[in-house]
Amino acid sequence: MTGMKKKAAIIGGGVIGGGWAARFLLNGWDVAIVDPDPQAERKIGEVLANARRALPALYDRALPPEGRLSWHDDMADAVADADWVQESVPETLTLKHKVLGRLSAMAPAHAVIGSSTSGFKPSELNAEGARAIVAHPFNPVYLLPLIELVGEAETCTRASKLLRDVGCHPLTLRKEIEAHIADRLLEAVWRESLWLVKDGIATTEEIDEAIRMGFGIRWAQMGLFETYRIAGGEAGMKHFMSQFGPALSWPWTKLMDVPEFNDELVDLIASQSDAQSGHMSIRELERLRDDNIVGMLRALRRTKTGAGGVITAHEATLPAPVPGDLPGDLPVTGDRQVPTSWADYNGHMNDAEYLRAASDATDRFMEMIGADTDYIASGCSYFTVETHTRYLAEVHAGDRLRTTTQVIDGTGKRMHLFHRLVRGDGTLAATVEVMLLHMDLTTRATCNPEGIVAERLSRLAAAHADLPAEGSGRHVGQRSKPAVEPA
Amino acid sequence: MTGMKKKAAIIGGGVIGGGWAARFLLNGWDVAIVDPDPQAERKIGEVLANARRALPALYDRALPPEGRLSWHDDMADAVADADWVQESVPETLTLKHKVLGRLSAMAPAHAVIGSSTSGFKPSELNAEGARAIVAHPFNPVYLLPLIELVGEAETCTRASKLLRDVGCHPLTLRKEIEAHIADRLLEAVWRESLWLVKDGIATTEEIDEAIRMGFGIRWAQMGLFETYRIAGGEAGMKHFMSQFGPALSWPWTKLMDVPEFNDELVDLIASQSDAQSGHMSIRELERLRDDNIVGMLRALRRTKTGAGGVITAHEATLPAPVPGDLPGDLPVTGDRQVPTSWADYNGHMNDAEYLRAASDATDRFMEMIGADTDYIASGCSYFTVETHTRYLAEVHAGDRLRTTTQVIDGTGKRMHLFHRLVRGDGTLAATVEVMLLHMDLTTRATCNPEGIVAERLSRLAAAHADLPAEGSGRHVGQRSKPAVEPA
Repeated sequence: MTGMKKKAAIIGGGVIGGGWAARFLLNGWDVAIVDPDPQAERKIGEVLANARRALPALYDRALPPEGRLSWHDDMADAVADADWVQESVPETLTLKHKVLGRLSAMAPAHAVIGSSTSGFKPSELNAEGARAIVAHPFNPVYLLPLIELVGEAETCTRASKLLRDVGCHPLTLRKEIEAHIADRLLEAVWRESLWLVKDGIATTEEIDEAIRMGFGIRWAQMGLFETYRIAGGEAGMKHFMSQFGPALSWPWTKLMDVPEFNDELVDLIASQSDAQSGHMSIRELERLRDDNIVGMLRALRRTKTGAGGVITAHEATLPAPVPGDLPGDLPVTGDRQVPTSWADYNGHMNDAEYLRAASDATDRFMEMIGADTDYIASGCSYFTVETHTRYLAEVHAGDRLRTTTQVIDGTGKRMHLFHRLVRGDGTLAATVEVMLLHMDLTTRATCNPEGIVAERLSRLAAAHADLPAEGSGRHVGQRSKPAVEPA
Repeated sequence: MTGMKKKAAIIGGGVIGGGWAARFLLNGWDVAIVDPDPQAERKIGEVLANARRALPALYDRALPPEGRLSWHDDMADAVADADWVQESVPETLTLKHKVLGRLSAMAPAHAVIGSSTSGFKPSELNAEGARAIVAHPFNPVYLLPLIELVGEAETCTRASKLLRDVGCHPLTLRKEIEAHIADRLLEAVWRESLWLVKDGIATTEEIDEAIRMGFGIRWAQMGLFETYRIAGGEAGMKHFMSQFGPALSWPWTKLMDVPEFNDELVDLIASQSDAQSGHMSIRELERLRDDNIVGMLRALRRTKTGAGGVITAHEATLPAPVPGDLPGDLPVTGDRQVPTSWADYNGHMNDAEYLRAASDATDRFMEMIGADTDYIASGCSYFTVETHTRYLAEVHAGDRLRTTTQVIDGTGKRMHLFHRLVRGDGTLAATVEVMLLHMDLTTRATCNPEGIVAERLSRLAAAHADLPAEGSGRHVGQRSKPAVEPA
């Protein structure tokens, strides 16, 4: 998110176009939409509502302010000054030729023209003179980082950089091929699954269970080959290949043949799908899917695996929190949106998550005074010995939550902090008082900090000494003047 | 885990047999292993070490005590009194016939005889008189719940019940077919992927990225059909089918043909896999995979989706914590193993997770006094207004952590609790003092509890009134006689 404000033009809405719009908009880009569907504004509005709920919840830092969203009847209008033009019209080659041809003529020369096509090759898309590349996303576009890029090398390089800026993971193909990579694998599974349903081996629901109770869980974090490398055990990949290679000549798939696509097959699949998922609306399924994906991606953040690593790398490029309109001249040690997973059965942020936010703020404060990753690697750290939290106001999923940190005492081995958690509307939601001690990580015994850490801490302690710290020094249940409101 | 202690016999070790052994053993079954491999004890020991680290971390309640593990040269010895006999010998039909024939003769009549075969049908396995069913697991067997069952109906029903008791998700096929369900889908992806590598479209690493950055994340929580139902949007599954059905006749897969399995292909795959993953040992990859899976499954617990629902359903059958050797005559409100994801950069349980454990204990205590899910649904609950935590000892991933709860005050709308977090070795790791207020969930205002909740709370308050509560009533930084050790 460096440099000048960027603009994307989205040609064709629907679920995919709307997902692209959300991805750019929530990363601070202006977005201009062209979509002839009279329902476009409502449909894309619903995708945006889902995205606003889910995408920021992946991050422990606030995304930049949203860009400006505009609607256009005129394509030329929409693509003016655009840095990225994304075509997501229906999968018909003649239509793609027409739209991409016009976009190529009208868009600025520096703009990437991407097509969301699932199957067409760039040579097919550009057969009538367009200059598009394939930029193939995966639904939900605002959450899944993968974008397959195929086409002219320099444009793909430029596209990669822009996509990384909005938190995506561009994957550039070495050669063009029908359906790129992922959709070839999906098509294989789709065809085999249609056979299994048609032949009465399993229902749609049973096939879904066979996926998500087993290999689906593996594939969210490692792919096919790394998983099989592990399966090969100590003997490795060659051993795995020699064990399972012969199966290639066995009748383990019906893919030498294609099931006939007729009304009977469509009715069979559709009725089984209704029985499986018909008790939930598409909107409910989307939200369940998004909550699950956010939760899993937050789990993958911890080990920086796959999409988890994409998020932490993107987060590092987001602007650090700034004091802004927060009370006092205190360091801002947190600025985030509250993820759905932090809410509990009472419909608000769970009590333990207040301490999670405060613990993150302590980490950030430690970095500020130089007690950072390198410092910890060198053998010293701070350990928490006591905390006291006052819950002053309810906080809900989706709320913005900012944290300031005041030093109460920084003498010797002690670091006594007072965090304030402030809601988006300026309400003080909680105070968290924390006592930490400086530790030698080898002996697990306390010791005094030295050098820059001691200096910075005592400088901040002196600067904060005269500021009020109302609510510190309390014990649980103590009567106080400004009565504690429950949160 | 009801009824008499159960026994499993594991015939053939390796990664799969070891995974089966771990699944049974950690769920309290006795396990007898027969494996001619001189390295078997070491290899299975390593699988068990991984399982002990990962499986209990899925649950917020302790698993039953481990069963007894024994090693046998003699098959008859191993299968005596077994309730389940699992064959995981190499994938050769003549070997399967020999082993399954002997097992069928020697095993008790009531025992399920399961084969881990990836591809053979029960009619093939039992062609020479054995009475086996297919019970096909997925690696890592101790974490992934799916077991595909194929074979005689009554045996499959009996097998399903036993598998659910050890936290698995049995999926019974409607008809037998080569490679069952999941391996057919995997074989299709495997064949297509081999083509992509062979044709130079992508490397093994790029294919893995194409999976785990996109559809792999979807498939961990919903499968193929439910995902496509959402993709169809409001128009539903028929719309999706009509949109993507025609692709069945397009050249989106090379599966009409099979790549030739030769040394060249094996070398190509193996060398790309080395470049991709060779910087990590198999052991390191396994632990990374397990940490990721545990984290994702814990995320899926929240919505009870897929494997997350299997875990919560299984957890509900686990015995509730009992006082045992904990100090005082206090209700035990928690008993769990600390998951790896609760540890932080200091190599111990993160400070916020102490409050997580205490918050879970508060929930459990609320259930005990009748402020349970129904009560909350009826419109009342308790909200936390203040907490104070003393960190007295370090806790590490894998440690057992039990919690007791003492009532300090239960008059009027106040519920003042004092949780003690006790480590497996009996050390008091933390005290967490909590003040909650009883709330009307509609008005979000405080009110007094009534009926059973008020009664039970005051009865416990009276019973706990004379017990010491050392460390309560403190404010942060207060000097105290038993000096606070950092944690």
